[in-house]
Amino acid sequence: MTTLTPTLSLACELIRRPSVTPVDEGCQALMMQRLEAAGFALEPMRIEDVDNFWARRGNDGPVLCFAGHTDVVPTGPVEAWQQGPFDATIDSDGMLRGRGAADMKGSLASMIVAVERFVADYPDHKGAIAFLITSDEEGPALHGTRAVVERLRARGERLDWCIVGEPSSTNLLGDVVKNGRRGSLNGKLTIRGKQGHVAYPHLARNPIHLAAAALAELAAESWDAGNAFFPPTTFQISNLNAGTGANNVIPGELQALFNFRFSTESTEEGLKQRVEAILDKHELDWHIDWALSGLPFITEPGELLDAISSSVQMITGRTPEASTSGGTSDGRFIATLGTQVVEVGPVNATIHQVNERVLASDLDLLTDVYYQTLVRLLA
Amino acid sequence: MTTLTPTLSLACELIRRPSVTPVDEGCQALMMQRLEAAGFALEPMRIEDVDNFWARRGNDGPVLCFAGHTDVVPTGPVEAWQQGPFDATIDSDGMLRGRGAADMKGSLASMIVAVERFVADYPDHKGAIAFLITSDEEGPALHGTRAVVERLRARGERLDWCIVGEPSSTNLLGDVVKNGRRGSLNGKLTIRGKQGHVAYPHLARNPIHLAAAALAELAAESWDAGNAFFPPTTFQISNLNAGTGANNVIPGELQALFNFRFSTESTEEGLKQRVEAILDKHELDWHIDWALSGLPFITEPGELLDAISSSVQMITGRTPEASTSGGTSDGRFIATLGTQVVEVGPVNATIHQVNERVLASDLDLLTDVYYQTLVRLLA
Ligand SMILES: [Zn+2]
Ligand SMILES: [Zn+2]
Repeated sequence: MTTLTPTLSLACELIRRPSVTPVDEGCQALMMQRLEAAGFALEPMRIEDVDNFWARRGNDGPVLCFAGHTDVVPTGPVEAWQQGPFDATIDSDGMLRGRGAADMKGSLASMIVAVERFVADYPDHKGAIAFLITSDEEGPALHGTRAVVERLRARGERLDWCIVGEPSSTNLLGDVVKNGRRGSLNGKLTIRGKQGHVAYPHLARNPIHLAAAALAELAAESWDAGNAFFPPTTFQISNLNAGTGANNVIPGELQALFNFRFSTESTEEGLKQRVEAILDKHELDWHIDWALSGLPFITEPGELLDAISSSVQMITGRTPEASTSGGTSDGRFIATLGTQVVEVGPVNATIHQVNERVLASDLDLLTDVYYQTLVRLLA
Repeated sequence: MTTLTPTLSLACELIRRPSVTPVDEGCQALMMQRLEAAGFALEPMRIEDVDNFWARRGNDGPVLCFAGHTDVVPTGPVEAWQQGPFDATIDSDGMLRGRGAADMKGSLASMIVAVERFVADYPDHKGAIAFLITSDEEGPALHGTRAVVERLRARGERLDWCIVGEPSSTNLLGDVVKNGRRGSLNGKLTIRGKQGHVAYPHLARNPIHLAAAALAELAAESWDAGNAFFPPTTFQISNLNAGTGANNVIPGELQALFNFRFSTESTEEGLKQRVEAILDKHELDWHIDWALSGLPFITEPGELLDAISSSVQMITGRTPEASTSGGTSDGRFIATLGTQVVEVGPVNATIHQVNERVLASDLDLLTDVYYQTLVRLLA
């Protein structure tokens, strides 16, 4: 076996720790040891069953924070993997294989090595470098980044720029960076009717029949047209259930789960009111349990996005597309501090799947991208 | 304990046999023994796991057949009964209590005793009296009356009139007789979409969204206006299911169970075509498994209904309402022979429930109603 680069060596060490959410398995200790050697002040923050840490080098602003998670999603069926899911290996195609290779232990290794190089080259850099690392991004995400951000907010910690290591790339390293995310709002809708026998419908109120037209109207509604940064807000019903299983019983209620992915053109309150108005218009006996998963955030073109774009261009020759598509990330919590947040990471084609893998050489390129961004912002 | 009337004595003997579908537990042997003594020719017809019998007295027409079932529905929680469900008892309110008291061992006892009296009083009656008894009316009903009717049809058996002993009365004995039943047509509808992630709806096709408007249209449709004998045809969706349980996955398909209760103004084929046309109009990728439960049938005013009405009037002082409401019965199979079919039985308030019961004296009155009907038609 040839000698691994520092980034790949660290990535393998991290992958070999089976840190399925919320377990950290010593990943953070390893990262903190490296950061301490690079002159960082460390602040572990175990909150309930979740390991997190905050680390910082430098006392002035501006502050550039690297954020990410050491936890990984479960392996799924181990027998479907070509090798043990926690055996970090580089195959004959040059792919680093293992759970977390792409999401996001590869990025964590790139951050550490980039920062080590940067502080060696620029020991008296401007401002400060920080790390915000959690072991619960893939799980409930209650005691992870969200909780750390609340502590930082409470003590007025300054956080100008944040690079989240989520695998943002689609086909080639750096082809896409995420400069925001849509909001996500969940609803659990109950429509109440009155149970009865199908032979006596006049004695019952069928919630399926009552709800159908309202559901059709919700599905057809145009919520907003999006804007320069966001596609239009979307509404999707993911689950719909009514009935006892018997084919001669009119059910007493119907339940639906739905989700909004919403742009900054809509607000949480506005969407709630519009859904409720449609249900009221159809004179339904309804109840909704609402749960906000995250507000939309956007990092408009500026210092951070410029530094990242020119670094990606320099290292890969590609101009990254700034996108707000896809799911949610912990960036939504950090953005509430007024921080510019951009996600920059490797190709996400295999994340959360069996045989998760990433091109090994991409992680070395990613290290260079992070290094160049540090140079542009803090050298 | 005072001496029981012949009808109540036989009813108690039948109730004490725990003949939960499809088990007969000797009920039919007991009935056949009594009918043989009354001069009937017996024809037991065990078909698969179901006991049935056909019995006949007289070789000419017209033929008046009594039809019914010895099987009962399960007891449900035994501890919820005030007495053992198969302990036939008459309580201090004069109620005969036990599983099958109302549905329909009481009626079977009334039929037997009425016929015994009639053949004693009119040994040389006109035409013929017949019995068609099954032990699978409450179950799948495949090897019961349906199968016996096919055998009778195959050999050209004549069957002019049929009295089914189903508990037709609503509040007082004889207040309602059923002179027909609506048809029942079941459909299992599948709407196919394309599974995906709620964050990427443009890559999926949500079958809930696609189906909603069509379901609303089906629920709002007026299928027919009914006629002098039937209320309008009704359509009810009893079950609706889509979704994986996860709130971030757009499901791949939606399933719905629905049921028509239809009048003679609609046909099975016509209803199918109209449902399918609505689904096609909404450009859905759909599939329906259809299952006809029974065609509608009607016994218009005539000899049988006249004889029953005047008998009920004579015995109870009430003029029965002829109704086609409610569920299905084995009458739907017998009617396919061209037979006039009417259901006449006790009050149905407690059928299929715990503590099933019927006013004991009503069974003696029912015996008289059956007797008087025999007199009017065959004396
Ligand atoms: Zn991730
Ligand atoms: Zn019955």
